[in-house]
Amino acid sequence: MPRLTDTRHRMLRTAASLMRRQGYAATGWRQVVAESATPWGSQAHHFPGGKEQLAAEAVALAGAGYERMLRGVLAGRHPAEAVAWWTEAAAVGLQQSGWADGCPVATVALETAHTSDALAASCSSAFASWTVALADAMREHGAPAEQADRLAMVVLAAIEGALLLARARRDPAPLLVVGNELRDLLLAKMPPSAADE
Amino acid sequence: MPRLTDTRHRMLRTAASLMRRQGYAATGWRQVVAESATPWGSQAHHFPGGKEQLAAEAVALAGAGYERMLRGVLAGRHPAEAVAWWTEAAAVGLQQSGWADGCPVATVALETAHTSDALAASCSSAFASWTVALADAMREHGAPAEQADRLAMVVLAAIEGALLLARARRDPAPLLVVGNELRDLLLAKMPPSAADE
Repeated sequence: MPRLTDTRHRMLRTAASLMRRQGYAATGWRQVVAESATPWGSQAHHFPGGKEQLAAEAVALAGAGYERMLRGVLAGRHPAEAVAWWTEAAAVGLQQSGWADGCPVATVALETAHTSDALAASCSSAFASWTVALADAMREHGAPAEQADRLAMVVLAAIEGALLLARARRDPAPLLVVGNELRDLLLAKMPPSAADE
Repeated sequence: MPRLTDTRHRMLRTAASLMRRQGYAATGWRQVVAESATPWGSQAHHFPGGKEQLAAEAVALAGAGYERMLRGVLAGRHPAEAVAWWTEAAAVGLQQSGWADGCPVATVALETAHTSDALAASCSSAFASWTVALADAMREHGAPAEQADRLAMVVLAAIEGALLLARARRDPAPLLVVGNELRDLLLAKMPPSAADE
């Protein structure tokens, strides 16, 4: 039944986009149904677990999309250059969206992770997949495994924080400053070889 | 009228505590009035600007409290040790609160900064006051002014991100890993002098 599958996917994409901008609590079924142009009533069929199920799946969908973007940026670039590229692109995306489109997972995580097991698991899996993508790339560029894991966590934390500070200030500076500092840190920890040139 | 002032302050403290845990959208007047044990109706008198005014003032109150804590931690410690102390204390606080009490500003900022000028200004001022506290301490320990500003922003961003990742994972590891890496970074950038021993 491609029609139903399409309806379900449209609702997920709409929910992911709304929750990225305004969070979990502010996003209601009515808005999801209206903006996805799906028939009222279909939500109960597709998401019998209610808004929690919708949000957990929306976060997983957004997390997978962000992981693909991140792996694409990391492919064929030194991690230091990839991180600088990522922060610059995030700064442009944030500014062009009127400071609305930051991390697609962070707002939902902060609102719900302590009260919903399903949402904590979904948010945590998304963050873990990005950390693994970063650590994989660092190992490929010579970082010892344990150092790569720690550095990947620091990089993700710093960029998440920079996205937060940039949104609050409505100013790309935190992303650009953090991107530059992380690039210097990663160049010092894993000096580029001739293969990176 | 001390009675009225006390009512107003109780509502602000309650709102700050609720918004730290569950965010802006999930925090309604009924819950604030009930948990602050203030009379229904007093909110219109004290906060004619509505929930946006309440939240902006609650964020300012929480931000000022966090700045005092931070300046206290930084006083008499090398910034590297202060940052390690801060992340360890934050990890303990997060765990003891059932992963609820993270940054008192971040959730509201992510939910509202792109749509409310008043809330963006309030969140941004809080973050700026913490960055200034960190940069002041770094300059006192020998960092050049411009480097201190950049490092302070990186430290705050990384700790904000670590608070987010720790909440999602319900695990203190991101705070401890980020705290250790930041300590090493700050020790390398501003080697302790004899006065710090």
